[in-house]
Amino acid sequence: MAIVVQKYGGSSVADAEKIRNVARRIEASFKKGNKVVVVVSAMGDTTDDLIDLANKINPNPEPREMDLLLSTGEIVSSTLLAMALHAMGYSAVALSGQQAGISTDSSFSQARITGVEPERIIRELDKGNIVIVAGFQGITPNNDIATLGRGGSDTTAVALAASLKARVCEIYTDVEGVYTADPRLVPEARKLDEIGYEEMLEMATSGARVMHHRSVELGQVFNIPILVASSMVEKPGTIIHGGKNMEQKNKVRGIAHDMDVAKITITGVPDRPGVAAAIFTPLAKACISVETIVQNASANNITDLTFTIVKKDIPRAMKIIAPVAKKIGAREYRSDTKLGKVSIIGTGMQNTPGYAAKMFQTLFAQDINIQMITTSEIRITCIIAEDKVKDAVRALHKAFELDKG
Amino acid sequence: MAIVVQKYGGSSVADAEKIRNVARRIEASFKKGNKVVVVVSAMGDTTDDLIDLANKINPNPEPREMDLLLSTGEIVSSTLLAMALHAMGYSAVALSGQQAGISTDSSFSQARITGVEPERIIRELDKGNIVIVAGFQGITPNNDIATLGRGGSDTTAVALAASLKARVCEIYTDVEGVYTADPRLVPEARKLDEIGYEEMLEMATSGARVMHHRSVELGQVFNIPILVASSMVEKPGTIIHGGKNMEQKNKVRGIAHDMDVAKITITGVPDRPGVAAAIFTPLAKACISVETIVQNASANNITDLTFTIVKKDIPRAMKIIAPVAKKIGAREYRSDTKLGKVSIIGTGMQNTPGYAAKMFQTLFAQDINIQMITTSEIRITCIIAEDKVKDAVRALHKAFELDKG
Repeated sequence: MAIVVQKYGGSSVADAEKIRNVARRIEASFKKGNKVVVVVSAMGDTTDDLIDLANKINPNPEPREMDLLLSTGEIVSSTLLAMALHAMGYSAVALSGQQAGISTDSSFSQARITGVEPERIIRELDKGNIVIVAGFQGITPNNDIATLGRGGSDTTAVALAASLKARVCEIYTDVEGVYTADPRLVPEARKLDEIGYEEMLEMATSGARVMHHRSVELGQVFNIPILVASSMVEKPGTIIHGGKNMEQKNKVRGIAHDMDVAKITITGVPDRPGVAAAIFTPLAKACISVETIVQNASANNITDLTFTIVKKDIPRAMKIIAPVAKKIGAREYRSDTKLGKVSIIGTGMQNTPGYAAKMFQTLFAQDINIQMITTSEIRITCIIAEDKVKDAVRALHKAFELDKG
Repeated sequence: MAIVVQKYGGSSVADAEKIRNVARRIEASFKKGNKVVVVVSAMGDTTDDLIDLANKINPNPEPREMDLLLSTGEIVSSTLLAMALHAMGYSAVALSGQQAGISTDSSFSQARITGVEPERIIRELDKGNIVIVAGFQGITPNNDIATLGRGGSDTTAVALAASLKARVCEIYTDVEGVYTADPRLVPEARKLDEIGYEEMLEMATSGARVMHHRSVELGQVFNIPILVASSMVEKPGTIIHGGKNMEQKNKVRGIAHDMDVAKITITGVPDRPGVAAAIFTPLAKACISVETIVQNASANNITDLTFTIVKKDIPRAMKIIAPVAKKIGAREYRSDTKLGKVSIIGTGMQNTPGYAAKMFQTLFAQDINIQMITTSEIRITCIIAEDKVKDAVRALHKAFELDKG
């Protein structure tokens, strides 16, 4: 019998009726003869509610205790889902991350899975049980509970699928699959039947919210096919896989966008060794993640330096930059929080010229100014004004003919 | 440095402000130079809310999943209490029952603690941490979470105090200590400064709600002094201890009562071997706990048999008795749910005649009919009409001069 791992997000288990609905979907897979392992997120807004509760008591809670607190949300939903299956006459067992054998490092609130010992899950499957695993959590070498950060339950699901050699990891969510662009912005956006790991990774890191990039990475490393589909409607979804059989390789596959971009520009920076380190070391120490860095060609050994971060980090970053700018003798520094980014992604772009030019022309035709550009082998990203992102996504979707399957 | 174990009940940690209040009490003990271990119950009505949530999904949930679900309540409150201590500048660490090293048997929903491995707690104390332990839970030999049933967090506290060789186990609750009778019934009831384990055990099993009898038993076995005191006001409370230095040994120490008594009477029962087994074996199999059994002297080999159970079990018990009564050839069977019981308790009653007579006379003077009587070495219990319990407690409190310290 094949093992299937399914994952249901928080909105899919937000109340008793939705939990029963998920139980019926699990039943369908079980009745097909699969051994079913289900990973579940916390119900609805539980995680946010727990964070609010903690903040009432301590505005700056210790990550260790915060993780132990948040881990309860997924335990609650996993037990309720098991109870729903019991009520339908099935044998099911709910397991915490620790019971499921998930080990992590000790980076509380953003831990990485370091290993899975699936013996307990296998034992329960062999007894005929459907196994429900609390997502988003694992156990550190010190026997503490750590959570995996944003998208953590997806990562739990793919890691379990890998360690159990599952046939497929099915991610059920509130969207119907991976689209050529965000359908809220582009009504003509088309659902992809399949997409490669690399492309999905670029989509995820460029702003597509469907799956967290770490879970896609894991799927790629262990070559686990990942199905992204709706938990509400019966439609085929999108398969993320190794890409032997890809539709139309020589094309842009999707447009990703992200409204959460801010930049800091430091002007009149002396162009000498050590300046970049002086700026970026304190930011890294404060856990501020810098995305893109652009340094202009130097004139008279004076240069400008611009970098992007997420918007919420701007106040902290500006405080950190103030003394640094003074120390290195920069002329001035300023921030801009009204930015966004738009990316075109596709393995077909590799070694094929013309995609960048077409992207820039399309934006130019829309009167959209490009502030910064970054690229990878299969992606081109332009940073533009936030209020132009919507127009840019639509224009690019049309220009690269993504509406035409 | 002495180790002190403190336990706070659910009403003491019902909201953020109350949690901060508890943190200040912990601070006071820590500042006195104690190593402090705190056991905490779930916030306010959390446990009931989780039960309601489960029942919406499955009216008859599996005990294993129910326990895993309920265990989250104490984890939430323990993390929040640790965060409150962090906010006040103290090092504190929250531990689940599993992390605290508490092992139980596999009787889900009413598990017994089988052992405590306190190495982690000791390590945290040695680092200077205040240790907050989620009460009411432990880990079974199969690595499952089991809860300890009613009063479970008290048991956790006493078990930890025993394994850590604590100087004292302090139970902070919503009453100010152990009283000579329930102060809601008897305004003259007096708080006891101290009481022996045996007496407290009899009080607890006779209806006094202050502490669960299992935690008192544990305290007695390991000779851990237990302080019962208010979590709200600064008053001395009651010490439960081994009783070398008892005030007024030769007296009734307290009156306990319990309104939750029902009886089933089976009349015309043939008095032959095997009849009692035929009646009580199926009740035991249905987990219905029978308290008192009275069998009348037999006439013509026909007898009457009466036993008491808690009120909620009456419908199930009557269903079980129906076929049994028929099978054994009994004349009829009936139930009465309007009963209560009242007990006088005191080690001074041992080998001293006259207490029973005085109790019966007092009730007779109040025109209260005694339906059944049970005794232990240090307790006499009368089962009477429910609506007479209040009068009985007051009259006995006065008759045995409990209002006079």
